[in-house]
Amino acid sequence: MPTPAVHVGPQENPQLVEAVERGGGKVVALADAEALVVAGGHGDLPELHEGIRWVQLPSAGIESWVSSGVLDEQRTWTSATGAYSHAVAEGAVALLLAGVRGIGRAARLQTWDNATLDGVQGTLRGSTIAIVGAGGIGKAMIPAFLGLGARVLAVTRRGLPVEGAYETWAADRVAEVFEVADHVVLAAPATSQTQALVGADELAALGSDGWLVNIARGSLVDTDALVAALADGTIAGAALDVTDPEPLPDGHPLWTEPRCIITPHSTNPAVLRVAALADRVEENVRRFAAGEELLGLVDLSAGY
Amino acid sequence: MPTPAVHVGPQENPQLVEAVERGGGKVVALADAEALVVAGGHGDLPELHEGIRWVQLPSAGIESWVSSGVLDEQRTWTSATGAYSHAVAEGAVALLLAGVRGIGRAARLQTWDNATLDGVQGTLRGSTIAIVGAGGIGKAMIPAFLGLGARVLAVTRRGLPVEGAYETWAADRVAEVFEVADHVVLAAPATSQTQALVGADELAALGSDGWLVNIARGSLVDTDALVAALADGTIAGAALDVTDPEPLPDGHPLWTEPRCIITPHSTNPAVLRVAALADRVEENVRRFAAGEELLGLVDLSAGY
Repeated sequence: MPTPAVHVGPQENPQLVEAVERGGGKVVALADAEALVVAGGHGDLPELHEGIRWVQLPSAGIESWVSSGVLDEQRTWTSATGAYSHAVAEGAVALLLAGVRGIGRAARLQTWDNATLDGVQGTLRGSTIAIVGAGGIGKAMIPAFLGLGARVLAVTRRGLPVEGAYETWAADRVAEVFEVADHVVLAAPATSQTQALVGADELAALGSDGWLVNIARGSLVDTDALVAALADGTIAGAALDVTDPEPLPDGHPLWTEPRCIITPHSTNPAVLRVAALADRVEENVRRFAAGEELLGLVDLSAGY
Repeated sequence: MPTPAVHVGPQENPQLVEAVERGGGKVVALADAEALVVAGGHGDLPELHEGIRWVQLPSAGIESWVSSGVLDEQRTWTSATGAYSHAVAEGAVALLLAGVRGIGRAARLQTWDNATLDGVQGTLRGSTIAIVGAGGIGKAMIPAFLGLGARVLAVTRRGLPVEGAYETWAADRVAEVFEVADHVVLAAPATSQTQALVGADELAALGSDGWLVNIARGSLVDTDALVAALADGTIAGAALDVTDPEPLPDGHPLWTEPRCIITPHSTNPAVLRVAALADRVEENVRRFAAGEELLGLVDLSAGY
């Protein structure tokens, strides 16, 4: 088995260096490297020489790298897609459950007001939860939702069966899920196809008992339509890890909307992220050395 | 099959009347009844004549009925224990998950402060969750915790195996669970044995990454010790559906403690409760008519 020569940069990161070594690689200067593990940065890369055959990007969503035009066909690119799946999935489950069970409202109370909480609660038990974009993160939510007594309707690009979902629909039927599902979790990549996927019509279809969770990208939701739907009670609530614009500016109406919970892009917190990325780097260096297919291969034509 | 003569009172409750009828009973005046379904009230009962052979109480916890001295050996008493299990269990899961994933903190934000959330989050994945009092409610939490990738240590009075728990301990080992578990959920009945079960020593043993959830009764926790442990960071946080005193007075330090989430006795909200009690009444009337064992039989010697 060859020992891959891997550079870790531009930032120093002892945990990623150790992960490269655990995976069977040696850490070298960029000039001597055949592979690059990108530590830090967002859309920026060092100048890549022809010897670099593989670049491991540090994030699961790679729009900033795509839009900066640095991804080329001359080498293999991998994102960290899937590496953070469990942490983000757990965050999404926490957001939906907190919303439906009134925890967001409760956390703001400073007096024993159970009438308010009585009036706003529902249950996930027996409900239908649509996961729009059942990739690694979406799939990782399914056992928790099943454990809570819900059933899952999955939406994927091509509609191939997803384990644990009672049905999987192709992306061209996505508008229908807002009619069928009690709650919708957005976990789809940000692409031109998913831009403003959720607008006034979808929110009206979701209905006054429905919660919308967005842990994907803010661009999937028309923010003005969401603000209006929350103010009018068109939907029960929204739990957002991502917003548009992001960061959400101080004074934005969503900050004080009682039906809204915002975790500021925090479902993948640093404390859980570093360990997860190191595990992925270790595994991909091992695969690179063995000539196996890497995890998280980027499809340049799809943009993710 | 006989048609049981059942009185519903002292309050009117059309949903319970319908439930009696669905269960095969007829609704009659108290004087003509052989069974009483208590609608409303807390500890109070109408005068019971000798013909009343069975009384269905409306709550799962029956301390107020026990302490008022109205429960006698002359007839069969049933509580609603178990009827609300799923709703309360879901509330407990929501509280623990919201705590561990920082949703309580997030709900109070009015600015895009992800540094705070990054610093306080943990994960239930791979954690050990102790359920102290794995009766109907505690057991109903287990599938959700397993679906989230946690394992469950159950504590019951006698320590008989609980399905889904990797171990079940008898109540006399309860002090040890605070050493072993990452998080503890209190779901035990309020008895003289569970009074102030959680004090300063148990909180210290739980540790700085541990969350305490109480959906049982406030009396199980020494509130002053909890306030101190939260202020000192002895534990990561507490999520409380019940408190001592209850209601928690305005201005109490727990209302503004950032590590604390309070749902004011709301894990069993009216919207979910009425439907659940009606289902139980229907089932018990059917069993009463058929001469089968009733659900929720009260053990007068145990006090629950």
